This record gives sequence, C-alpha cells and structure tokens, in this order.
Amino acid sequence: MPAASTPRTHPPFNEGAVQNTEASRFGAPALAEMPDDIRTLCEETRAKIGFVPNVFLAYAKRPEHFRAFMQYHDLLMKGPSGLSRAEREAIVVAVSAANDCLYCVTAHGAALRILGKDAAVADQIAINWRTADLAPRLRAILSFAARVNEPGFAATDRELAELKSFGLSDDDAWDIAAVAAFFGFSNRMAGLMDMRPNPQFYALGRPAEDR
Amino acid sequence: MPAASTPRTHPPFNEGAVQNTEASRFGAPALAEMPDDIRTLCEETRAKIGFVPNVFLAYAKRPEHFRAFMQYHDLLMKGPSGLSRAEREAIVVAVSAANDCLYCVTAHGAALRILGKDAAVADQIAINWRTADLAPRLRAILSFAARVNEPGFAATDRELAELKSFGLSDDDAWDIAAVAAFFGFSNRMAGLMDMRPNPQFYALGRPAEDR
Amino acid sequence: MPAASTPRTHPPFNEGAVQNTEASRFGAPALAEMPDDIRTLCEETRAKIGFVPNVFLAYAKRPEHFRAFMQYHDLLMKGPSGLSRAEREAIVVAVSAANDCLYCVTAHGAALRILGKDAAVADQIAINWRTADLAPRLRAILSFAARVNEPGFAATDRELAELKSFGLSDDDAWDIAAVAAFFGFSNRMAGLMDMRPNPQFYALGRPAEDR
Amino acid sequence: MPAASTPRTHPPFNEGAVQNTEASRFGAPALAEMPDDIRTLCEETRAKIGFVPNVFLAYAKRPEHFRAFMQYHDLLMKGPSGLSRAEREAIVVAVSAANDCLYCVTAHGAALRILGKDAAVADQIAINWRTADLAPRLRAILSFAARVNEPGFAATDRELAELKSFGLSDDDAWDIAAVAAFFGFSNRMAGLMDMRPNPQFYALGRPAEDR
Amino acid sequence: MPAASTPRTHPPFNEGAVQNTEASRFGAPALAEMPDDIRTLCEETRAKIGFVPNVFLAYAKRPEHFRAFMQYHDLLMKGPSGLSRAEREAIVVAVSAANDCLYCVTAHGAALRILGKDAAVADQIAINWRTADLAPRLRAILSFAARVNEPGFAATDRELAELKSFGLSDDDAWDIAAVAAFFGFSNRMAGLMDMRPNPQFYALGRPAEDR
Amino acid sequence: MPAASTPRTHPPFNEGAVQNTEASRFGAPALAEMPDDIRTLCEETRAKIGFVPNVFLAYAKRPEHFRAFMQYHDLLMKGPSGLSRAEREAIVVAVSAANDCLYCVTAHGAALRILGKDAAVADQIAINWRTADLAPRLRAILSFAARVNEPGFAATDRELAELKSFGLSDDDAWDIAAVAAFFGFSNRMAGLMDMRPNPQFYALGRPAEDR
Repeated sequence: MPAASTPRTHPPFNEGAVQNTEASRFGAPALAEMPDDIRTLCEETRAKIGFVPNVFLAYAKRPEHFRAFMQYHDLLMKGPSGLSRAEREAIVVAVSAANDCLYCVTAHGAALRILGKDAAVADQIAINWRTADLAPRLRAILSFAARVNEPGFAATDRELAELKSFGLSDDDAWDIAAVAAFFGFSNRMAGLMDMRPNPQFYALGRPAEDR
Repeated sequence: MPAASTPRTHPPFNEGAVQNTEASRFGAPALAEMPDDIRTLCEETRAKIGFVPNVFLAYAKRPEHFRAFMQYHDLLMKGPSGLSRAEREAIVVAVSAANDCLYCVTAHGAALRILGKDAAVADQIAINWRTADLAPRLRAILSFAARVNEPGFAATDRELAELKSFGLSDDDAWDIAAVAAFFGFSNRMAGLMDMRPNPQFYALGRPAEDR
Repeated sequence: MPAASTPRTHPPFNEGAVQNTEASRFGAPALAEMPDDIRTLCEETRAKIGFVPNVFLAYAKRPEHFRAFMQYHDLLMKGPSGLSRAEREAIVVAVSAANDCLYCVTAHGAALRILGKDAAVADQIAINWRTADLAPRLRAILSFAARVNEPGFAATDRELAELKSFGLSDDDAWDIAAVAAFFGFSNRMAGLMDMRPNPQFYALGRPAEDR
Repeated sequence: MPAASTPRTHPPFNEGAVQNTEASRFGAPALAEMPDDIRTLCEETRAKIGFVPNVFLAYAKRPEHFRAFMQYHDLLMKGPSGLSRAEREAIVVAVSAANDCLYCVTAHGAALRILGKDAAVADQIAINWRTADLAPRLRAILSFAARVNEPGFAATDRELAELKSFGLSDDDAWDIAAVAAFFGFSNRMAGLMDMRPNPQFYALGRPAEDR
Repeated sequence: MPAASTPRTHPPFNEGAVQNTEASRFGAPALAEMPDDIRTLCEETRAKIGFVPNVFLAYAKRPEHFRAFMQYHDLLMKGPSGLSRAEREAIVVAVSAANDCLYCVTAHGAALRILGKDAAVADQIAINWRTADLAPRLRAILSFAARVNEPGFAATDRELAELKSFGLSDDDAWDIAAVAAFFGFSNRMAGLMDMRPNPQFYALGRPAEDR
Repeated sequence: MPAASTPRTHPPFNEGAVQNTEASRFGAPALAEMPDDIRTLCEETRAKIGFVPNVFLAYAKRPEHFRAFMQYHDLLMKGPSGLSRAEREAIVVAVSAANDCLYCVTAHGAALRILGKDAAVADQIAINWRTADLAPRLRAILSFAARVNEPGFAATDRELAELKSFGLSDDDAWDIAAVAAFFGFSNRMAGLMDMRPNPQFYALGRPAEDR
C-alpha cells in the first residue's frame, strides 16, 4: 500500500485562528478608569498572581455588579465553612465542567491544582469527576453538587441524610449547594460575556514536564 | 347503565395533608434572635406587606449569606436598569417556572401580578411564557432569559443582535442574563431548603372574584 | 453613585400586547350555527358557570370530533371511578403543567380549586406537584400520572404493586393512566389550536383577597 | 489461533422464554361474557381478519371505555378526512415507534403494510420515518406528527404554513395532530396494560419470502 | 351522518416516492473495479445469500476501510465468545433500533430472525427489547448493551456484578460492550452514508404468510 | 463577626484517595506474557514516549481484539487522509470530552497538545470546542464531529454541502465521521474497563510553567 503511506501536506493546525484574550465581548475599562476600590483590588491581585483575571476586568464595566458579585463570591469561596477551600474549588470545577464553561474550568482548574496540591486529580475533575480518583467524602460532595446543578433541583431528605453519613452537616450541604448554584450563575454570566481565560491560567499549578 | 352512574363516596380531597409553611427545612431564627440589621429589614417588610416572606427567615439562619444574597438581589431587582421592575419580575417567574421552583413562582408570581398590573398575563407567564399574550419586547426578553437558563449557555453574536433589534442594549442583555441566572441560583437554594411559600402569596395581587 | 439611583422611566409593562381570547386559531362557529345537541350543551354550561369554555367552541368547528371528545372526556372525568373528581382534576393539572399547556392548566386549575376546596394546594400542583403539600395517596396518584406522561411509558409490575400499597386497585391505575394520557392528547390538541383560556378561569375558585 | 476458532456450544437462543400473548396484564373477558354490542364487534372482526385483536379484548374489560375508545378511534382512522387511511396508519406507526409501543407498531405496522401496499416502506416507517423513502407530502405529514408527539407541543404559524405548502389544509393539520396525539394516548394505555400483539400481526401483509 | 361516510378519493399512498436502493450517498464501485480480496468476498456472499449486502459495496469505495471494518466486525460477530451468534445479533438489533439506524435494523433484523429462529421475538427486539418476550439471560445482555449505548457510559462494579449473577463473565461483558459500541460506530457510518437496506432483507427469515 | 473569620482546620484535600493507575478493571498481562507482535509494539512505544499507554495493556488481555482495534485505529489516525493528524486528534478530544471519557481526553489531549503545537487551544477543545479559538475549517470539522456523535445521527445533504463550503470533500466527511464514531466506540470500551490514564499524560506537551 505505498500510495497510502505517501504523506500528504496539510495546512498548519488551526491555521488563521487567533487566541482571543478579551475579558468580555462587552469590553472592559482600563485600570485607570476604574473606581478606586476596584482598581485597588485588581492591582493587589496582579501583585499576587502576576496578572488581573479577566473576570475582574469584565465585571468592572459595571462597578455595582463587580462589588455584589465579588462580595458573594468571597463569602462562598473564602468565608468560614466546614468545606476546605480546595473542596470548594473542586465543586466549582465539577459544576463548570458540567456547564461547559471555558473560563471557569480554566481559571478554577488552576486554583484547584494549586490549593488541592494534586494536579492530576484536578485535571480528572475537570474532565469527569465521576471517574476521578476521589476519596468518599469528596465524592459525596461532588455528587451532591452535581444534583444541585440539575434543572429543577429539589433536595430530598434522603440526599441530606446521605451527606450526613459522610460527616457533612446541614451547613455543609448549604455550602455545597451555594457554591454549586452560584457558579451555575457565574458560568452563565461568563457565557453571556464570552469571557476568555487569561493565557496564564493554562499552565498555573502544573509541575514542569520532566521528560 | 344505571350501576355506572351510582355515585361512589370518595375520601375528601388530599385528606390528611397539612400545609407546610416552614421557611426552610433547616429552620429559621425568631426575629428576636436576628442581628439588628436583618431584624429591622424583616420588620420593615412586614409593615409593608403584612408578613415576612419566608426567604428572609430562611436566609436569616446565616446572616452573612442573608446580607450577600439580599444585596445582590436588590441590585438586580431594584437597581437602575433599562428593564422595568415588572419586566425583571417576569424574567424571575418565567425562569422559576422552567426550574419548577414552588417558592419563587408563588412569591414572584405575586410580585409580577402587582407590578405588572395584569394578573392574567402574570398567570400565563407562570404557566408557559411561550404561549402567553406578550408584546414583542417582553417576548424577546423572556426568550433570551430562557436561553440563559439552559445548561451550557453561551451567547452568540446573533442572539445579542436580535435583542438589539428590539431596542435592548448590551447592558439590558446583561441585566436579563443576570436576573435569569441569579434566580437559577436562588431556585436551587430554595430547592435545597424546601422553602415554602407564605400562604398570603397565593392571593396577593388578584382581583376579587366577581361572580 | 447617585446617578445609579436616579429612577429611569420605563414603558408600561407588556405595552402593546393584547389579550387573545380566541377559542382556536382555526376559528369557532357561533352558537346559532352549531348542531342542536352541541348548542344545547354550550348553553347549559353557560347557564351553569357563566360562560362557554373555549374548548367547547374550538371543537364545535368539527361536530363529530366534539362529540367523540366530550363523550370520552366525560366518561373519564365524571364517570364512575375509584378516584374522586377532584383527584382526577389534580391529575389533569399536574400532567398539563408538565406539558406546558396554558389552556388546560388554567381551565382545570380552576376546576381543581373548586372541586378540591383548597386553592393553595391547587396552585402548588399547577407549579410543581412534587413539592406540593400532598397526602400520600394523592402523591402516589400524581407520581404514577407523571410516569404515564413520559414518552415511551410501559408500566412495571413494581409500579402497580406500589399503587396497591396505597389502596389503589388495577381499575384505579387504569383511571389514573387514562386521565393522564387522555390529557396528553388534549394538551396537544390545545397546542395545535392555540386554544386560549377564557379570562374568567383565572379568578374562578379563588377566595377574595383579604388585604 | 486454533483454540479461538474452536466452536463453543451455546444455549439455544432466548432459552426458557415464553411468548406472552395475553391481551392485557389486567385480564380480558371471554367473548361470552361481553355485552352484546362488543361481542358482535369482536366476532365481526374475527370473521374478517381471522382473529380478535388484543386491543379489543383488553378494553372489553371495561365496556364503557371500549365504546368511547373505539368510537373515537374509528372517527379518526376511518372517518372522512383529507388524509387517506394509509396516511393515517403511517402516522400511527411513526408515532408509536417514537413511543416504543410494541403493540401499536406491530398491529398498525400490519395495517400499514396492507393499506399502503408497500411492505418495505411500511417497515422503514416502523424503524425510522426520517430515513424512509417518502414522497414530500408523506414526509410533511410525518414530520408534523413527530412534532405533535413531542412533550410541550404548541404549533407555530410557520409550521401550519409549511403544511399548506404541501396542500395540507387546517383540517388536515387537525387530523394529523388528532391521530398522532390520540395514539400517544393509546400507546400509553397499551404500556399500562402490557398489551401483547397477537402473533398473527407479525406476518400480516408481508409477501411470502421468495427464496 | 351520510356525508361523513361518503368516501373521498385520496392520492395513492406515498405517491411519487421511489425506493432508494443505493448502497451509499457517496457511491460504490462495480465488482469489477474492486481489489481482488474484496471482490471475492462480495461474490462469495452473493453465492450464499443471493445478493451483496450494501454495507459491502459502500465500504468498498475505500478498500482499507473495508478491510479494517470487516476484520473487526467478523471478530466481534463470528469470533469465539461466550455469547452465541444470535445473542450478538440481538445486541446489534437492540442498539441499532435505539440509534434509529434503518440499514442495521433491517439487515441485522433479518440475521436475527434467521439465527435466533424466532421471527416474532426478533421483530419485538427491533421495536422495543424492553417489552419483548425475553428470557432473563437475554434481558440482562440487552439491558447492559443499552447502558453501553448511552452517551457518557462508564460501567459500575455493580453492573458487572449483576451480569455475573446471570452467568455472564468479564469476557462476556467485554463482548456485549464491544458489539454494542462497535455498532454505535457502524450505525453512525450508515447514517453518514445514507446506507440503504437491500430490498431482500425485509422478507429474509420470515415464515411465509399462511392466510 | 469575629468567630466567622476564625480559620477552621480542614482535612487535607481528597484525603485517603489513591491514584488508580490500573490499565483496566479486568487486569492486563505482563509484557513477558504477551504475544510477540503485541509485546514488540508495546516496547517500541515505550522506547518512543517513555511508557506504555494503558490502552495497549488493557487490550492486550485479548490479543485478537488488540490487533483489530489497533489496525483500525492506526488507519483512522495515521493513514492517508485530507485531515491532518492534529485535526484528527482534535476530533478525538472533542468527542471524548462530550462523552466524558477520562482516559481518551487525557491521552489524546496530550497528543493534541504535541501535534497541534498549541497547548492552550488543545485545552480549550478538551473543555468546550464551541467556545475555543478555532479557525473556520477546524470549527466546521468539530461541528460535524459533534453531530456524528449524537445518538440517531443521519447526515443531511445540507450538512455535507456545508462541509464542502469549507473545502472538505466527501472523503473528508467520511474521515471526520469515522474518527468521531470510532472514538465513540473507544470511549465506551474505556468506560467498560475503567481504563485509567497513565500519570505521564497529564503533563505531556505542556510548556514548563514560567512563573
């Protein structure tokens, strides 16, 4: 079969595409144009991780929305809770993957790799938490988060009892549901804005390739 | 067929059921136990509409969550926007109906009857906005809200252009999406808590029956 | 942010919409043009409830269809059965809500409020029977009706055994399924005709608002 | 790989299964026990096609239901209509296939082979009307029937206009929808009763195999 | 109702349609143009069953694809396995029916009628294996095959344990999954090519009609 | 609210989980036990990329299946085609992501990063090709692949015409469909076997993190 093995020449992969790194299809203000509190927050974050995540820039277009979103976000993701921060990031990644949200899987996938200190399981959760290498507690958390993410969700007593069998209290159930449902909201806002992941997120929290 | 027409005796309808009016399956604090700012808000609302909506009581169990939720809610539902308050309530009712949320359809259905001043169309939207008697602008708003509510939503340029053909700007699209997606979040929290509608909501905003 | 709190003026809610009260997109005959038996039935109903339901007018366009539909309808809804008339109306409302049928939810929602003598639970069933305040027997009835309404329904022995555990016989299962499936048929005919609810239905069976 | 090609012995196909030919899981009366009108109908049908279709026996258990069902059925399937009887059978087969109804696909598949005089296209419609060899008019009919069969169906003006472009009037649309939706009802009743096809149906209307 | 019984004249059923018996929308080579090994295979098959199945002609357009497909197909369908050949054909028919594949249901339906020696149950499986007259082993096989065919399939330990309770080993599970999933692939290739069943398939394996 | 800000101690993330790196739940032979041709292939691959991909080990349990699978796989992925190898890997990643296949997204995600030379767009395709930065040709390819992956796929003339407008021939359509559908098959086999990605895949083809 010599003809078959003759290599054809193909165009370069994805020729002509350009990586879109716009924060939002609706545009974003320059830092200098932002209200002081928002600009400060952006600058502090850049000092810490090296860049301003596009979600900050996108929401900064409407400062009141920026403030309400970030305040709720920080309460859910950084406030006191029976769930660790890494567990909460795992919920975000699992829900955002189910909702096909490019920005949130990319940005929170990076956060999960860093906070969870297990890049492989973070990548697994980004693909399919059901077949990821999860301990029973984390499996119970993500299983409930997936239920919450379903349209028409209404919890049954049995579901809450099952969470308790893994040591997860009513407040933990609240936090799982609140994180899962808030990111269902956030995923849709990212989908509205065509929010693009900052290029830095793809490599964050990955060990250098060792071959 | 005389036997057939013999009336049988049946038990009273829904015999033994009790109307559950608990704010939340997780319980709710008494007003006296609430932080001052939250108790004040509850009392002001009761002064205005005659009762404290169960969503206030349910969230009051966790004051920080109460505050973050209400602040965002009020920004979206009462803040400045190109959408009228009645239009925003219509989005909430349509999305909550799609998500089968008993509390939100009931409570915001009442709000829509009052703010929209058309109880019949409010009831239609609570059943199926697609066959409701809608003007083109409201149809475009609810059609986009329904899209946002779909899992995996990502807006296309074409959808945004269509909104513009009805005079709806990018900021209006943002507001439609934010209200729709925030209530997807809220619906799921109500489903978590088994939040029950206050009995007063069912009749609010209905003209007295005139026959 | 004073600008933000400046109230905007919005157009009146749903401006330009007109309430469509046509019985059917295919038109309907005047009473005078109807065959005697059908006209008589329409007039008797009007004498009883004050108006002729649009389903009568819509089907009257094709008298043979009117007769076959009404005869089957009355057998199922008013004939002898182990299910009370209110229970049968509850099935109709739950199935019609699942099928998003504006006419049937509105008209039979009114019937359920009247026959069931519990306007709140009737409204709950119209929104989501799963989270309604139902006694176990009614929950079992509506749960089976929802199964019947699914495409590809085929009952299992186990489902019928479960109905029996609530005192529901094979004939009761037949009646639940027949009512549920007949209204799946009726919902689709209403969807074909764009059948509009008579305006009177919205308020029927509701207690006057007492605030 | 000689081991691999060693034939294994397997049990006979479907060993131990018995062909269930019961009309209904709820039982069926003997002809002698039936009311006169129903027994006569059964006997006439047996005289014509050689056996009593199980749908007759299953419904005969409840004579009033038998009468209402058959009267409506005959109006829809044999009454005056712009659709030929074969076209109506094609709707039944396509809808029943979509609803996975063993009894109706088998019994009406036989009827379609006989009335349509094209056993191959009848078999194609029983598998997938979308890829069957259909003339444009029949494709338009089955396409609309499939839409009617979807949950939540509500016709659009555009769909009715498209039917008209194939010469199908409003009354034809009514008949397509009525046949499709009535058999959605009938499919579910067959699924309730576990109605089994009479063995004779499988071969009816097939040319003898000629090889 | 004499007018109603007046027969209308309708056009002949499916008037103007032509039975398309092309192997593939992409065309197929004549036997004389095929490579020797493929032509020989086609001729041998024709000698055995009287015609060349269209799947041979369709794949012959690309000989390397023909060879890879047929080699895998024959391993799965005729190679050593704990499943009988009829059981494997039953899997193909059940999966192809779920995937609405006209070619595969028709061609493999014929094979199942012949190999299984029970034309009625073969037809039942082609309509809905769930309501077919199946022995427990065959039901377990087709139930697992249906699971494999679902998008996102990942087997659970429990599912494999259930297969074992029917005497089905890990290798049997492999074979069920491989046949089911390979035909999911094959169904899609047939859908790509608009592969048409040879007319002979419809009657193959059917007893001559005896009335 | 000082109590709220008191940090809790949480258990380490995913505590107690172990990374499962078994090739298959059915086990896999040691290289020494494999037939010569298969062992040689495994050793050659190890020499090239540093490890034996688990898909080789999993299929090696049944050598005939190994050979048939690999032969077809290599024809589709490395054989002559109008699609470049990177484009084919992009199809595999997009389809495997839609099918939630952990092994295939991980292994072929690595291949796509290497062959496509654009790790960011490879990661985007693994999350959601619809919102990835794609040139029109690659978008057309993945769009058609997604269609092929749907249950019940049957191509329309219009879809093939659209491919042609991007310079994609009938043979290209064949190759897109064959790759997409073959990996639908492969995804299901991986789901059957609980095939685990080799740990090396996660980092392959990623630039070292530079911060």
